[in-house]
Amino acid sequence: MFTGLSAFPLTPLRNDAFDETAYAGLIGKLVTAGVDSITALGSTGSYMYLDREERRRVALCAVQHAETVPVIVGIGALRTSHVLALAEDAQEAGARAVLLAPVSYQPLTDDDVFGLFEDVTSNLSVPLVVYDNPGTTHVTFTDDLYASIARLPQVAAIKIPGVPGVPARAAARVQTIRDAVPAHVTVGVSGDASAATGLNAGCDAWYSVIGGTLPELALAITRAAQDGDSSEAEQQSARLEPLWALFAELGGSYRVVAAIAEQLGLVAPDCLPRPIRGLNAPARARVEAVMTRLQLGAETA
Amino acid sequence: MFTGLSAFPLTPLRNDAFDETAYAGLIGKLVTAGVDSITALGSTGSYMYLDREERRRVALCAVQHAETVPVIVGIGALRTSHVLALAEDAQEAGARAVLLAPVSYQPLTDDDVFGLFEDVTSNLSVPLVVYDNPGTTHVTFTDDLYASIARLPQVAAIKIPGVPGVPARAAARVQTIRDAVPAHVTVGVSGDASAATGLNAGCDAWYSVIGGTLPELALAITRAAQDGDSSEAEQQSARLEPLWALFAELGGSYRVVAAIAEQLGLVAPDCLPRPIRGLNAPARARVEAVMTRLQLGAETA
Repeated sequence: MFTGLSAFPLTPLRNDAFDETAYAGLIGKLVTAGVDSITALGSTGSYMYLDREERRRVALCAVQHAETVPVIVGIGALRTSHVLALAEDAQEAGARAVLLAPVSYQPLTDDDVFGLFEDVTSNLSVPLVVYDNPGTTHVTFTDDLYASIARLPQVAAIKIPGVPGVPARAAARVQTIRDAVPAHVTVGVSGDASAATGLNAGCDAWYSVIGGTLPELALAITRAAQDGDSSEAEQQSARLEPLWALFAELGGSYRVVAAIAEQLGLVAPDCLPRPIRGLNAPARARVEAVMTRLQLGAETA
Repeated sequence: MFTGLSAFPLTPLRNDAFDETAYAGLIGKLVTAGVDSITALGSTGSYMYLDREERRRVALCAVQHAETVPVIVGIGALRTSHVLALAEDAQEAGARAVLLAPVSYQPLTDDDVFGLFEDVTSNLSVPLVVYDNPGTTHVTFTDDLYASIARLPQVAAIKIPGVPGVPARAAARVQTIRDAVPAHVTVGVSGDASAATGLNAGCDAWYSVIGGTLPELALAITRAAQDGDSSEAEQQSARLEPLWALFAELGGSYRVVAAIAEQLGLVAPDCLPRPIRGLNAPARARVEAVMTRLQLGAETA
């Protein structure tokens, strides 16, 4: 379950409420495309903006429409007792695994972070993916912290941030992490722009933002890398360079992917939770130009 | 209401539940000491870790025990609709004003931040304090953003981070902010170590962490500065240098003040919300040594 392509769908809102119909459509699209797993309620899925009841409904909807595709559910929250409640809800909803980032408001120490994972894993029946997402959590994992957390029961995988761009350095980075964690713990890359490099460097999985909205593009990269055709994987990724440039220039993948999903009619306009505003008109025009140039969405038309 | 000393009490937990008895005791202590206002549910009051019902109870308890001292209530949350609900609860509880920080998970743009304050102030009956706390929100206010938000209806005050240590530079910084915002908007300093400098530099208020637990010490600094005795204010602050050093060396004021309150028996041991662990034993020993040296808490014995 923790190899290949894990697709991170948006959790679309409509008038500040969970748009279950649109979400079911997104999940169905991922099943049809043949992704290896679906991660509901990742950062792209706006988990931190939703309350417990909304998150329960999102998890249930994902499991219901995922058919045989395993669903991983994000359970991150600021307070440990809230994480434990969300873990229970996710398991009851049928999550095959959970994803946990150490979200912070007050800065966390390594002891706090380890303690969080210790408290959560000791109360868990399904496997857990450690979610290292420093851009949103403001927590920096050291390799020692990876090592100690990876030894906890139920820990099955680590989702790391982007890898270095130079293949040899990426391979060395992945090997360093592998050496630090038990052999049964898989290592997956995130940061879509560096996914091909990460997979070619030996990552077992790609936790993918575009995989949640444009799964065919993410699968082309993933399958090439899995087949050992590293040059094809890099070429498929290089073709998407204009998209990676938008992510870099427009403040990350979150708003850009929402704009793409809105433009394709997969979700209602203004699908992100306020105070997050969608991209402004000039930025949307850039996104549309890139979509036309790369024929994004054409594969699903 | 937005001048002088605003005291930020902890919201103590006991076995992961709001410790209403201890909290009522903290509020009573602030009333007795004679603080100018009480800000419930600031960062020191763990607002981001508490759910809506807990926050409602905390606000009610603060108002109930504050007698004639005005209570300001923190309403920050990640999603605008949640902030609006918390604002309603705070006003129903009897808050005389609200405090709002632009909390983030996904990074916020200036437009997002302005939009948040616009949406909230247009639905508010009481005044609002803008809470600029970059260490926890990861939002950086520009002076232009101060200026545009300060022009919104209901905005009465801005709580700024620490000021420069050199008095002339601190005065220049405060003047720059004053020039940017309407005359009726007061400017208050936070960052306890620089409070005396900030007050002497012309800040109208001090939003104070130690004021919530050791109000007499904070009042001595505040009243000296208000009386125009800047050298006495600086001396009172300089006397507390070992405490400021602990804040700097032990990761901020939050855990140190919790340890002090626990040591003084004002709150139960382990009063912070997990995953935040209180200070470890060696750090607590340092805190106790400083408490002995400065005779902290003796004034309330």
